[in-house]
Amino acid sequence: MGLVGGGPGAFIGRVHVAAAQLDGRAELVAGAFSSDPSRSRAAGLDYGIELDRGYDSLDLLVKDEAARPPDERVDFVTIATPNHTHFEFARVLANAGFHIVCDKPLTADLAQAQKLLAAVKDRGIVFGLTYVYSGYPLVRQARDMIRAGELGEVQALRVHYIQGWLRTRLELQGHKQALWRTDPLQAGISGCFGDIGTHAFHLAQFITGLQPAEVSCRLETFEQGRRLDDYGAALLRYRNGALGTVIASQVSHGRENDLWIEIDGTRASIEWHQENPNSLLLRANNRPLKLYSRNPGGEYMTASARSSCRLPGGHPEGFIEAFANVYASIFDHLAIRQSKSKEQLPQAIYPTIEDGVLGMMFVSHCVASSRAGGQWTPFPTL
Amino acid sequence: MGLVGGGPGAFIGRVHVAAAQLDGRAELVAGAFSSDPSRSRAAGLDYGIELDRGYDSLDLLVKDEAARPPDERVDFVTIATPNHTHFEFARVLANAGFHIVCDKPLTADLAQAQKLLAAVKDRGIVFGLTYVYSGYPLVRQARDMIRAGELGEVQALRVHYIQGWLRTRLELQGHKQALWRTDPLQAGISGCFGDIGTHAFHLAQFITGLQPAEVSCRLETFEQGRRLDDYGAALLRYRNGALGTVIASQVSHGRENDLWIEIDGTRASIEWHQENPNSLLLRANNRPLKLYSRNPGGEYMTASARSSCRLPGGHPEGFIEAFANVYASIFDHLAIRQSKSKEQLPQAIYPTIEDGVLGMMFVSHCVASSRAGGQWTPFPTL
Amino acid sequence: MGLVGGGPGAFIGRVHVAAAQLDGRAELVAGAFSSDPSRSRAAGLDYGIELDRGYDSLDLLVKDEAARPPDERVDFVTIATPNHTHFEFARVLANAGFHIVCDKPLTADLAQAQKLLAAVKDRGIVFGLTYVYSGYPLVRQARDMIRAGELGEVQALRVHYIQGWLRTRLELQGHKQALWRTDPLQAGISGCFGDIGTHAFHLAQFITGLQPAEVSCRLETFEQGRRLDDYGAALLRYRNGALGTVIASQVSHGRENDLWIEIDGTRASIEWHQENPNSLLLRANNRPLKLYSRNPGGEYMTASARSSCRLPGGHPEGFIEAFANVYASIFDHLAIRQSKSKEQLPQAIYPTIEDGVLGMMFVSHCVASSRAGGQWTPFPTL
Amino acid sequence: MGLVGGGPGAFIGRVHVAAAQLDGRAELVAGAFSSDPSRSRAAGLDYGIELDRGYDSLDLLVKDEAARPPDERVDFVTIATPNHTHFEFARVLANAGFHIVCDKPLTADLAQAQKLLAAVKDRGIVFGLTYVYSGYPLVRQARDMIRAGELGEVQALRVHYIQGWLRTRLELQGHKQALWRTDPLQAGISGCFGDIGTHAFHLAQFITGLQPAEVSCRLETFEQGRRLDDYGAALLRYRNGALGTVIASQVSHGRENDLWIEIDGTRASIEWHQENPNSLLLRANNRPLKLYSRNPGGEYMTASARSSCRLPGGHPEGFIEAFANVYASIFDHLAIRQSKSKEQLPQAIYPTIEDGVLGMMFVSHCVASSRAGGQWTPFPTL
Repeated sequence: MGLVGGGPGAFIGRVHVAAAQLDGRAELVAGAFSSDPSRSRAAGLDYGIELDRGYDSLDLLVKDEAARPPDERVDFVTIATPNHTHFEFARVLANAGFHIVCDKPLTADLAQAQKLLAAVKDRGIVFGLTYVYSGYPLVRQARDMIRAGELGEVQALRVHYIQGWLRTRLELQGHKQALWRTDPLQAGISGCFGDIGTHAFHLAQFITGLQPAEVSCRLETFEQGRRLDDYGAALLRYRNGALGTVIASQVSHGRENDLWIEIDGTRASIEWHQENPNSLLLRANNRPLKLYSRNPGGEYMTASARSSCRLPGGHPEGFIEAFANVYASIFDHLAIRQSKSKEQLPQAIYPTIEDGVLGMMFVSHCVASSRAGGQWTPFPTL
Repeated sequence: MGLVGGGPGAFIGRVHVAAAQLDGRAELVAGAFSSDPSRSRAAGLDYGIELDRGYDSLDLLVKDEAARPPDERVDFVTIATPNHTHFEFARVLANAGFHIVCDKPLTADLAQAQKLLAAVKDRGIVFGLTYVYSGYPLVRQARDMIRAGELGEVQALRVHYIQGWLRTRLELQGHKQALWRTDPLQAGISGCFGDIGTHAFHLAQFITGLQPAEVSCRLETFEQGRRLDDYGAALLRYRNGALGTVIASQVSHGRENDLWIEIDGTRASIEWHQENPNSLLLRANNRPLKLYSRNPGGEYMTASARSSCRLPGGHPEGFIEAFANVYASIFDHLAIRQSKSKEQLPQAIYPTIEDGVLGMMFVSHCVASSRAGGQWTPFPTL
Repeated sequence: MGLVGGGPGAFIGRVHVAAAQLDGRAELVAGAFSSDPSRSRAAGLDYGIELDRGYDSLDLLVKDEAARPPDERVDFVTIATPNHTHFEFARVLANAGFHIVCDKPLTADLAQAQKLLAAVKDRGIVFGLTYVYSGYPLVRQARDMIRAGELGEVQALRVHYIQGWLRTRLELQGHKQALWRTDPLQAGISGCFGDIGTHAFHLAQFITGLQPAEVSCRLETFEQGRRLDDYGAALLRYRNGALGTVIASQVSHGRENDLWIEIDGTRASIEWHQENPNSLLLRANNRPLKLYSRNPGGEYMTASARSSCRLPGGHPEGFIEAFANVYASIFDHLAIRQSKSKEQLPQAIYPTIEDGVLGMMFVSHCVASSRAGGQWTPFPTL
Repeated sequence: MGLVGGGPGAFIGRVHVAAAQLDGRAELVAGAFSSDPSRSRAAGLDYGIELDRGYDSLDLLVKDEAARPPDERVDFVTIATPNHTHFEFARVLANAGFHIVCDKPLTADLAQAQKLLAAVKDRGIVFGLTYVYSGYPLVRQARDMIRAGELGEVQALRVHYIQGWLRTRLELQGHKQALWRTDPLQAGISGCFGDIGTHAFHLAQFITGLQPAEVSCRLETFEQGRRLDDYGAALLRYRNGALGTVIASQVSHGRENDLWIEIDGTRASIEWHQENPNSLLLRANNRPLKLYSRNPGGEYMTASARSSCRLPGGHPEGFIEAFANVYASIFDHLAIRQSKSKEQLPQAIYPTIEDGVLGMMFVSHCVASSRAGGQWTPFPTL
């Protein structure tokens, strides 16, 4: 495993490393942790990797690692840098034939996303995108239940991602995470929707598999002077006639990371909350509400949900395990790929570059609709 | 107290009577309970009123009661009949000078609502509309807290009213409540939004006092063959720039009566759920979440919230008490009115006919916007 | 309906009246509301009863009402006075042949309780004891489910009643409720356990029907200078081998009225919380937790639970309705009794004098065990 | 890091390794994973350690590792084997001067525990005991708050540890975890109380620091034929007069790992649930309940709680992080120890061998009290 980003002060880079290594299936051995050579080397030491594999740049990493014997080079590289760099880094890695794990959103805009999709397809590499919430066992359970028809046809969904940390202008106080996320040059065309609206949209996609048909959106900037949206609400019409609502906020006081979803089917409805991820609610009229707990011993658990658990029921699993599950599914895919012809590959359960392109479509159509006063905008097929 | 409606098989009529009588401040003494004379008399007996005051029609009630000496006649009449009858009944009562308590929505359409408003103003009667959820102590607490500036400026709100009982076409099985609520002739131009969307809208109005500026809405009919909407989502722009979302559903499996609201202010945010009405959540970044319980001994309770409690904290109060609180506030208003000149009347805390007109505006603009594919529609001032 | 107690400043008397009248099946027509004649008359006026039926004493009430024609006299009298008066008032009423509804605990000590039991049996009157928590629909549901064997054999239970209001010595500040509840002359031999431990014990009895065999208890007085216990924990061994724990507190900061119970059976377990009374949890290993909501339309509702509901699911019912349900069951019993011979009477679902005697046994054995340092004390059969 | 146990089929061994390695501060390099040499070597391969450091026995590990140069040998060894082996393994390690991390309970009986305490003190090694629940950030927060006097004096506590997995006799079906936990030869004198009652007891100790004075206990075996207790309830009197209740169950249907605690102080009370570990409740009469979320940005977080967080608020942390926090505190202690004289060592925040001895006292006194019919038994000072 190699890493781009994750240097001093970075948050998500360390999460990637801990998650990838959690089950002992990967080991960080190389990285370009910072654009500052001395900081990159220092980070390398801190991660405990060999001195000469803490590179000054991704180009050096690619060149040097590619020159090593196949069983001694990194087999995949994780990109954990601000959004605007994803495209260039991923392009370099794809061209060099490295498999890629990339943080979301995929790129800074849709055009980049589509170019990258072409490059990845062309090189035939594996590309995992860390829409981490898809890694929670009960999110996978929900997806399985819908595919098995337990909800009937999905007709409505409501997904919210409510945070509050950007209620004050932290970006004016030198807060690193706030700085780049509110800067159009680094974050892209959208702030709140690019950062978390896209998570909410993907969660709905991942669980339901519905195809969006058109979207209407209203993005707001409630903190005066901020250059990107910090709140937004979108209505989605899906191709089967279902209606979806996506609401995201970064300015709701005291709300931490409250991503949640409700899905209404003709036979049943479900509800799941990221801040309470070990429970999934299933409801049907006039019957008892069923609470499915994350419990590998539960008779009700689907195979993919069960195999996404590390601990018995009642031993809370959280964000890091969800992250590790996305990696585990990528590793599984890589392993199957090595042993099988491409035709036999099962559908990936982890988010792929196609999900990334869809996410960029969502963000760019939301921005366009909002600029047009909330006009309904058609959603092309991928 | 007199009653129109509330005959055999009716649900809400009996709730009105129990609520109005809960504190011993009113007593049902007359009624036109059914358009069928024998059923009306039977209901009168069942309510324990005198035989000759169970009238065959509202006209008879009005004529007969008006002929009694002032201290022996009903001082107000409650209308608890299907929507399409509200206008006519209220007009008759207003013209005869009786005070009125009316179930929501105010009328079948906006034109009726405005005519009724004029009649009520003209006659100077008291008119209470039972948007019952405004009667919960902690809803009043939330309103007081916002007026006192504890949330700062309100910039976003999300209000949901999620039910599931109409997921199947109960109206085809002779279900009385379902029948009239899904029939355009009795319910008016909207099903779900007229029935419960209007509650959600009013709850937001009542608590925040914000003025709507424009609305975009998408109404759906998910149960095939139904003639009115059974699901809908609306975006509201308020005059101060705040953005609101109103979502209402009658087809979400297993959901009972889940009205809830979240309000984001510049200083704090609040959350309240009707199915758990004895708790109100207050949040601010990096401070502990505060849960305000309905507790008349609570130091934090505002005067109007405290006086809306009957029981000590921890002794759950529910729907019937909220209903009774609306009545109690109407009774307070009537009592003050009798003792004071009109100029000195404090602002009513109970929903009035103006709220009813605003509710009808909301419903009619939502229907219009939805018919125009979700177009944004300006919201006139009252 | 007549009432002893419930004068100015009283809390529970007004609850009795509101509960008894909620469904229009009873009407307060007479009372001895205070031992002070002028206060009693004032209360009578406030309740809206006829002037000459606000009596100065229970003796006058009994004498005067007994002299009225049967269909004009009160048919039952509710005792809502401090504990130490229950015995004498009940004895007078029983001897005069009035049916009785009495607040808990039954009497000031066990000897009184047993004498009263004899008197009540001798006179053949109906005697209801308002262990109000037995009136919640889902408590009745739990009882029905256990009787139907859905939990298998009950082997363990844990019931807690946690309050905090007596954490400071309110009795020194003239707080009326605190004064008599902490005074051995008025409350009897126990404070916390007599007031709320007995509720917790009854709730377990009511739901499970288990027979206690022996008890060990430790009562504490944590507020210095207080003369009765304000905290206690008891272990109960039941005749079938089950182990129960009863914990009650009046000094747990910020806790309002948190009575809750968990019951473990060989086939399933249940959990219920008074502060969230519209939900009942049912669990079995490796199956989804089932949440039964109070919903008269619920397929899972038992007949007695369903008939204890007034409102549809999702419209919260609370303490007042539970109280009203106890009254309703007493009224049902009286009605059946009038139409049937005594032999055909179904078992009462409301708490009776036998439950009251059992409650007094529990309290007196707990006090005895605690005085003996927590010694196990046998529990006689009734 | 070395490991005894954790071979194929083991659960807790792998948790130890993942937790110790989570922050990149330790690396598993040696182990005696199984008493079967081929299984031990296989496990070693699976863990990715060098072939010659997967030892056939602890003796070989000790001999071989001790012979290595100091900077190449394991610096501590984790014992993750069934209870009955802890004493012998720990003795061997202590005598060879290795630092030790040991799973709970400390030993099979109290005599062993006291001998081990002497040996550990004699050799001056660091000894950490993985009472994992002490590692949750909000548990540490609770401890800090009590030490800072925010609750006033602690007068009552209630701690429950409710599981259901042993409701059926899994030990008859060859279930490995069930087998040794219900076998007196491997688990020691108590089943449920030795396994989880001791966790509950320690949690109360860790948070409150109260000294136990005497205990009364009733242990039960509800599953017929089982040789150890599977349920129990204990009352604890502390030296300051506080009363504690410890209830533990392995037979409560559908309950997963529900360890929770409530603590009543003279100024405030707190509540924490292991299954919802990212929230801590603080209550005081007539003030809003405060919910402290695990949020390193929270103004209210104490230093030790904040430094026990890896992720921002709202990103759920769970069991593995708590486990890692115990290891992190041991590592901190080792690091300080290397740089300072013993006298300057701050008090360990991780559970030590003294906590283990106290835990064995608790279990042995509970067993003795229960055998004597629940008699109160004095609790010696350590």
